[in-house]
Amino acid sequence: MTKVLIFGHQNPDTDAITSAISFAYLQNQLGVEAEAVALGEVNEETAFALNYFKVDAPRVVTTVANETNQVMLVDHNEAQQSVADIKDVEVLAVVDHHRIANFETANPLYYRAEPVGCTNTIILKLYKEKNIAIPKEIAGLMLSAIISDSLLFKSPTCTDEDVAAAKELAEIAGVNPETYGLDMLKAGTNLTDKSSEELIDADAKSFPMGGLNVRIGQVNTVDVNDLLSRQTELESAMATSNKENGYDLFVLIITNILDSDSVALVIGDATDKVENAFDVKLENNTALLKGVVSRKKQVVPPLTNAFN
Amino acid sequence: MTKVLIFGHQNPDTDAITSAISFAYLQNQLGVEAEAVALGEVNEETAFALNYFKVDAPRVVTTVANETNQVMLVDHNEAQQSVADIKDVEVLAVVDHHRIANFETANPLYYRAEPVGCTNTIILKLYKEKNIAIPKEIAGLMLSAIISDSLLFKSPTCTDEDVAAAKELAEIAGVNPETYGLDMLKAGTNLTDKSSEELIDADAKSFPMGGLNVRIGQVNTVDVNDLLSRQTELESAMATSNKENGYDLFVLIITNILDSDSVALVIGDATDKVENAFDVKLENNTALLKGVVSRKKQVVPPLTNAFN
Repeated sequence: MTKVLIFGHQNPDTDAITSAISFAYLQNQLGVEAEAVALGEVNEETAFALNYFKVDAPRVVTTVANETNQVMLVDHNEAQQSVADIKDVEVLAVVDHHRIANFETANPLYYRAEPVGCTNTIILKLYKEKNIAIPKEIAGLMLSAIISDSLLFKSPTCTDEDVAAAKELAEIAGVNPETYGLDMLKAGTNLTDKSSEELIDADAKSFPMGGLNVRIGQVNTVDVNDLLSRQTELESAMATSNKENGYDLFVLIITNILDSDSVALVIGDATDKVENAFDVKLENNTALLKGVVSRKKQVVPPLTNAFN
Repeated sequence: MTKVLIFGHQNPDTDAITSAISFAYLQNQLGVEAEAVALGEVNEETAFALNYFKVDAPRVVTTVANETNQVMLVDHNEAQQSVADIKDVEVLAVVDHHRIANFETANPLYYRAEPVGCTNTIILKLYKEKNIAIPKEIAGLMLSAIISDSLLFKSPTCTDEDVAAAKELAEIAGVNPETYGLDMLKAGTNLTDKSSEELIDADAKSFPMGGLNVRIGQVNTVDVNDLLSRQTELESAMATSNKENGYDLFVLIITNILDSDSVALVIGDATDKVENAFDVKLENNTALLKGVVSRKKQVVPPLTNAFN
C-alpha cells in the first residue's frame, strides 16, 4: 500500500493546515501510513502557530496521483477546492464542517461532518473515540485552528462544542487561549508587504452559483481602511483574476476582527445578487456588511439563495 | 419548528426501514421531534422482522415538503434514490454506508458515513456515543438489518464491526442471530405470488453511469431456477420499465442466499459493459457471477469502472 496523503483545501488557512497534521497523527497512531501535505504555502497566521508550537509546515503538493492512489480530505470536500487531480485517486475519508457539494465517490468511505465551527473540533472527538492521547504541540495547533475559524469565539459559526474543545485543548497545550489567540490573529493581519494578487487570493474559494463561477475571498484586518486605501489596485487585480480564471464574480470580504464587521468589495457580473443577498446598496463597488464575519455561514448561503 | 422526518431510500429494504426507526428513536431521546417514515411499503423480509419484534411499519410518504422543511436521511444519500421533493427541504443529517454522489447541500450538516455493511452498525455507535439505552425491540430491528445487509454475515460488505454489533444487539434483543436470521431471510424469498413487475422493482436503485441511466435490482432466493423459469416475463417487464422510466440498462441480480452466488439478467443498451465489468459472456441475456452477493461492493463499482 502506498502512503495515504492527507490535506486540506487550496489556499490553506490555519484549520486546513493543522487538521491535516492532527488527522495524520491520529491515523499514524491507528497504524495507517499517512502524511499531512498542503495545497499551498502556509499564511502568516498559520506560520505563527507552527512556529509557536515548533512544528514544521507540511510539504506543498500540486498533484497527488503521482505518488499515491489513496487520500483523505480534511476541512473541505468540493472538488474545485481540492487537489487538481482529485478524480484520479480514491478518497478514503473526509473530516469536514462545510456543506457537501461537487463531491462524488465510486466506493463507500468514511465521512465525518458536523455543523461545528472548526474541523479540529471534530478531530478532537475522533481522538477521544479512539482513545489516543494528543501531544502538546498537536493540541496547540488544533486550538489555533478553532481560534482562527471562530475569530476568537466571536463568529456565528462558533458552537458550544468549539468553545469546550478549545478549552480542553488549551489546557493540554498550556496556553491562555485569549492572549495567545489575539497574538496569532494579529500575526495574520500583517498585510502591508502583500501584493494585491496575494491579498485577493489568500483563502479565496470558488463556488458555482446559478451557473456562474463565483470567487469569494476573505482578508482579516484590524483596520479596514488599510485595505480600502488600496481599493483601485485590488479591483484591478480582481478583474484580472476574473478574466484569467473564468470567474464571473469576485467578492472580497474584508473583515475587521476587532469589531466583527466586514466590507464587501465586489467586481464582475451579477453584482446585483450581492445587493439582494445582503439587502445593501453597493457604492463605489463596496458595501458594509454589519456583523458579517463568516464566509461559510453569513456569505455563501445568502449569496447562493440570491442566485436561486 | 416542524417535525423532522427521517427516512431511508426508495424501494426500502430492511436496513432502510429499521435505520429510520432506530435513528428516529435516538433523535427523540435527544429531544428532537422526529418521525420515521418510509418511501415505500415494507417487503416481506422486513414485515417478518417488524412482526417478530411487534413494531408498526412506518407511514409511507411520497413527498415531504408538504409537511416539513427539515429531514434526515438514513441508508442513502443520492437524490435519485431519495424522496421526490428532496430539493425542497433541508437535510439536517445523513447516516449512511454507501458511496456519496448526487448529494448537495447549501449548509453545513451532520454527515456520518462509514464503510461498514449496515447503517444500523453506525447507529449503534451513535447510541453509545450519546449514552442512550437501546430498547429490546429496536435492538431486534437493528440486528435484522445487519443480517439482511450481510446475508447472515456472508457478504463481502460485512465487516468485523458488523459482526460485533450484531452480537451485541442479539443479546439485547434476546434472539439467536443464526436461527432468527435464516427464518427472516427465507421470509424474504417467498417470491411465488409476486408479479414480474414487483420482482424487478423490489430493492431496485438507479445509478447514473457514463451518461446512461442504469437500473440495478436484486432479488434474494434459495433457488435461482425459481426465477429463471420466469425469465421471459421478467425480460419483458424489464424492457417495459426501461422504456417507461428512461432507463438505458436494467441489471437484475438474482442472488442465491444459501450458496452466495448470483445470476445477472441484463436487458437494454450497453450490455457489453456488464460483460467487461465481470469478465463474463452473456448467454441468453444471463451470466453467472460467482461469489457475487453485494450490489454495493461487487456490482456497482466494477460496472461504474466499465463505463469510465
